[in-house]
Amino acid sequence: MRRLLFMAPARRWAEYREVLPGAIARAGIKAEVSPEVPDAEVDYIVYGPGDGGPTDFARFPNLRAVFSLWAGVETVVGNESLTVPLTRMVDPGLREGMVEYVTGHVLRHHLGMDAHIVNPDRDWDNTAPPLARHRPVTVLGLGELGGACAGALATLGFPVSGWSRSPKTLPGVTCHSGEDGLDAALSDAEIVVLLLPHTPETENTMDAKRFAQLALGAVLLNPGRGALVDDEALLEALDSGQLGHATLDTFREEPLPGDHPFWAHPKVTVTPHIASETRPDTASEVVAENLRRAEAGEPLLHLVDRKLGY
Amino acid sequence: MRRLLFMAPARRWAEYREVLPGAIARAGIKAEVSPEVPDAEVDYIVYGPGDGGPTDFARFPNLRAVFSLWAGVETVVGNESLTVPLTRMVDPGLREGMVEYVTGHVLRHHLGMDAHIVNPDRDWDNTAPPLARHRPVTVLGLGELGGACAGALATLGFPVSGWSRSPKTLPGVTCHSGEDGLDAALSDAEIVVLLLPHTPETENTMDAKRFAQLALGAVLLNPGRGALVDDEALLEALDSGQLGHATLDTFREEPLPGDHPFWAHPKVTVTPHIASETRPDTASEVVAENLRRAEAGEPLLHLVDRKLGY
Ligand SMILES: NC(=O)c1ccc[n+]([C@@H]2O[C@H](COP(=O)([O-])OP(=O)(O)OC[C@H]3O[C@@H](n4cnc5c(N)ncnc54)[C@H](OP(=O)(O)O)[C@@H]3O)[C@@H](O)[C@H]2O)c1
Ligand SMILES: NC(=O)c1ccc[n+]([C@@H]2O[C@H](COP(=O)([O-])OP(=O)(O)OC[C@H]3O[C@@H](n4cnc5c(N)ncnc54)[C@H](OP(=O)(O)O)[C@@H]3O)[C@@H](O)[C@H]2O)c1
Repeated sequence: MRRLLFMAPARRWAEYREVLPGAIARAGIKAEVSPEVPDAEVDYIVYGPGDGGPTDFARFPNLRAVFSLWAGVETVVGNESLTVPLTRMVDPGLREGMVEYVTGHVLRHHLGMDAHIVNPDRDWDNTAPPLARHRPVTVLGLGELGGACAGALATLGFPVSGWSRSPKTLPGVTCHSGEDGLDAALSDAEIVVLLLPHTPETENTMDAKRFAQLALGAVLLNPGRGALVDDEALLEALDSGQLGHATLDTFREEPLPGDHPFWAHPKVTVTPHIASETRPDTASEVVAENLRRAEAGEPLLHLVDRKLGY
Repeated sequence: MRRLLFMAPARRWAEYREVLPGAIARAGIKAEVSPEVPDAEVDYIVYGPGDGGPTDFARFPNLRAVFSLWAGVETVVGNESLTVPLTRMVDPGLREGMVEYVTGHVLRHHLGMDAHIVNPDRDWDNTAPPLARHRPVTVLGLGELGGACAGALATLGFPVSGWSRSPKTLPGVTCHSGEDGLDAALSDAEIVVLLLPHTPETENTMDAKRFAQLALGAVLLNPGRGALVDDEALLEALDSGQLGHATLDTFREEPLPGDHPFWAHPKVTVTPHIASETRPDTASEVVAENLRRAEAGEPLLHLVDRKLGY
């Protein structure tokens, strides 16, 4: 009998206790999952970041692997007490939710919806927006989520450019990689979507230099991670008019503090880290499959590269 | 040398004079197009509804056909002085624009964007919306525009139902037709999109009975025609909470009068008939091709059925 420690906030356990044990049983593994397991008896950890500080994984002498419930693992990947394999979450529900959020907000900005949603002057200006095929969109990060979003936007007709660390080929997407690739990906983009992981390499990817490369009045969507953006440079670019709007789902501090300038800024929309949520039912299947693989000595799915940080 | 009368508001002529003559020449037809042609010399009319009353087509003794620049022909189809063939506009730009508008506003409502776009209380409620696959959407009208919109929504994962006069088969869409079909199409729908033409049959399709069939709190999108909706019943359904929101692009009177209750209603978004616009460059190709066909005695494209009214 293996024992899994469910190490995530209580409200997550309320959801997962309903579905995770069943998924593990269906995977044919005899294991018990609970938020309370004596340290020495913990074989695996199901991990979701909580409010406390970094975990001391050295407490768990028999730990075999850590399965993250989150796609982004920046809170745990650099933890030096973690010496066993770490997997991250890749799940169809997470991908679908992100595609919906990104497509929806790209279309919102493309169509200029806000001017109709809030229109106190009852202004009737019936100039139709350009077609999507004339609105270049760039997606930074072409992984599980960014790749799916880029594909969905291309299907809607947007000319889509993308950027990743390693070279990629995606149907309908002009793919760039490496440092020079970023210049090409950003230049003249009218809407930019950030779906990079937060790593030392990607911190402040969008800074003053990068904002200046975009088309005048461009829009930034950040459902990736707050630290991908230099907040000061963002506010300056919004104030100068170089950026037309920013819709942000992720922040350096969450919940975003009530006195943060983003809340009051007329050109910023704050969404409360809801772009996409791991869905307990589908995510439980992913955890159970990785547990099965670990037990069978097979390679784990979605293993995090600790050196690259994602 | 044939003569085409360009019978549409002056601002349209400013656009079409740049592209329509070239399209006609490329179709190999010797013809002149102008907003001023002596009545007796008019061979064809390129038609876009203006502010005046109904046209007396009997003025044009040599008229051979009327080519509408608009997809909806309700302002001209019932004109008894019109005895020659009437074609309507079907154009890739029109279709793309409508798919973008409908997809964008469906996602807006699905994701509950408005609560983030206007959030004076700086509310951080990070409950993620359900996935599209759990949000039933219904499209009334499965023609050039409705069919394309239903397909795009299905591609995004929404369970899509549709309704048309004649039975249809569309991949990923549960298709209904006829009166009984409408009950099935509307029941429990959470978002309803109207893309029917305005005909005597479709007037007031959405009335109190139909609103009551939808899921509680459903959203109505009307980029079709204002007359498809019983406005009083709509306001009542919004006020009772049966409907959660209405986003309207078309109205019985346009521009929507400044004192109309829709403007002030907190659950109504008015967009100024911009869902989709005929694009002069692509539309000119369609007109030129129909002119070529008329001259060659070939069947016209997108011929309006005068009896059905669309
Ligand atoms: N807001 C939300 O609700 C939410 C939900 C889930 C996830 N997220 C965020 O979304 C991020 C992406 O998730 P994912 O599942 O798509 O991750 P992923 O599959 O690991 O993809 C990451 C992408 O970023 C690229 N990348 C990484 N480092 C780079 C660098 N230094 N330069 C250029 N490109 C780089 C990767 O390039 P290669 O392809 O070459 O490796 C890959 O294309 C997560 O890390 C998380 O921060 C947010
Ligand atoms: N807001 C804008 O910017 C904008 C722009 C363009 C068009 N429009 C509106 O969009 C409408 C649709 O355009 P379209 O090009 O898609 O037209 P279409 O190709 O003629 O399609 C009309 C659809 O409505 C169905 N229909 C007609 N009468 C019906 C009835 N009595 N019961 C059930 N279904 C019925 C038709 O059924 P069948 O398939 O069986 O014939 C067809 O599926 C136009 O008429 C116009 O009013 C609005």
